[in-house]
Amino acid sequence: MSPQQTARMDDYKQFLIVFSLALALGIVSIALALTWVLHFREGLGWDGGSAEFNWHPLLMLIGFVFLQGLAIVVYRLPWTWRCSKQMMKLIHAGLNIMAFILAVISVVAVFDFHNAKNIPNMYSLHSWIGLAAVILYPAQIVMGITVYLIPVTPVYVRAALMPVHIYSGLFIFISVIATALMGITEKLIFSLKSPAYKDSPPEAVLVNVLGLLIAAFGGLVLWIATRPSWKRPREEVTQDLSDNSTSPEDIKVCSTMTSRTEHESSLETRRRNGKAEESG
Amino acid sequence: MSPQQTARMDDYKQFLIVFSLALALGIVSIALALTWVLHFREGLGWDGGSAEFNWHPLLMLIGFVFLQGLAIVVYRLPWTWRCSKQMMKLIHAGLNIMAFILAVISVVAVFDFHNAKNIPNMYSLHSWIGLAAVILYPAQIVMGITVYLIPVTPVYVRAALMPVHIYSGLFIFISVIATALMGITEKLIFSLKSPAYKDSPPEAVLVNVLGLLIAAFGGLVLWIATRPSWKRPREEVTQDLSDNSTSPEDIKVCSTMTSRTEHESSLETRRRNGKAEESG
Repeated sequence: MSPQQTARMDDYKQFLIVFSLALALGIVSIALALTWVLHFREGLGWDGGSAEFNWHPLLMLIGFVFLQGLAIVVYRLPWTWRCSKQMMKLIHAGLNIMAFILAVISVVAVFDFHNAKNIPNMYSLHSWIGLAAVILYPAQIVMGITVYLIPVTPVYVRAALMPVHIYSGLFIFISVIATALMGITEKLIFSLKSPAYKDSPPEAVLVNVLGLLIAAFGGLVLWIATRPSWKRPREEVTQDLSDNSTSPEDIKVCSTMTSRTEHESSLETRRRNGKAEESG
Repeated sequence: MSPQQTARMDDYKQFLIVFSLALALGIVSIALALTWVLHFREGLGWDGGSAEFNWHPLLMLIGFVFLQGLAIVVYRLPWTWRCSKQMMKLIHAGLNIMAFILAVISVVAVFDFHNAKNIPNMYSLHSWIGLAAVILYPAQIVMGITVYLIPVTPVYVRAALMPVHIYSGLFIFISVIATALMGITEKLIFSLKSPAYKDSPPEAVLVNVLGLLIAAFGGLVLWIATRPSWKRPREEVTQDLSDNSTSPEDIKVCSTMTSRTEHESSLETRRRNGKAEESG
């Protein structure tokens, strides 16, 4: 292999390692959250009691953290670069909509629980920032669909709004993770009595570790999302931006893995994009 | 004015508005934290009691949040672009070192308080992520000084490590803000008894608002730091990277405001940088 090909493959391997690690952290987090609610807490139910509350951390983690994280990095997966950009936008929007639905169910669970137990709603910083995220998130989704999925917005408007779309998406994602960490803090203080949180019982250690894994997952998603050389190749972006019509073959089913040649050519393009941007 | 000049001035005005807003949010946050500890809590002291604990939120906010935030955006201030890059690096490092010193004093305050009251240290998620930040932060400072301030590191190493330096700096900053929000959550639950946090007494509302302002300050710092067109002009970066020697005039005192012509030329360079990078 030429040094250039070696560098390209190294870049691809690095991406695979970081992405696999993010995926593993997400899955282990969900497993820990399940252990928490099923083994240490009251399980899952829909009765206004603690078992209903338990859907709140679990669904927030699955939807608002994990699925939102996947939605953010879905354009970066090299095996999707043969798919049309329109197809990938649908997947991006679909994952975000699924995350939003889970977040709403999760909010209903905690309101039901509070109302049944006569605990006031919306008094904590966790609830304030969490609700802000739950309101901003659908606004972001509607803005994204209107500007990027529906083929009526002029190209220059799409391009001008892209930095805002990226920033607000990442800002909401970070806020959601900070809210999850506050939620863990609240729940451990409120539910651990004897032994208390400060006595570090196994449940406290397990859920603290869960918090660390969530933060690490967030860190990896942000790393993947902000590496210029890992971006979807630019040609297709440009082509897509200039092509506002949605033809039937635009939403074609795409193969799950590109051929080696096409793949390498895409990687080379990304590497060039990266070089140009990182030189600043 | 030509349309190009108008666009340049608009960009400059936008920067000034966002930066002033960030500065205002930071200052109002510090004022709210002072109100919290002086009016609602036990004031400030160094006696192992609550007055010593109160240095913890105050100094963390002033140092680890506000000064670190300023250190992150200090290269973006147009009136510093006449200063040598070496001078700005010293200011960047100096602000971070000040922030670290305040963070350490702040950690000592909370350990003293815990030890005097027989409260275990390091049991909460707040303390785990907070300690990680307090350990990673000096590592980041030492790495930054070794690679970028001491003129021995080869240019290609400096350039290769810059994305890591930027990412890890922003990741630590975000972690610090998330830790602050967890700390607020803990403290309000522990210290508000009757009325409790859930009854939303004035102190709870004031400190929740403080949490929102800290999150907004963080959001503005991240916005400023990630706008390509607001970067310090590239020429000087390149020049500085290729110039590894530290001559006495390199650390010259610089004027606080560039002349209009130089300033406009810098803005134009930045605008070009931004255009090139945002087109991806």
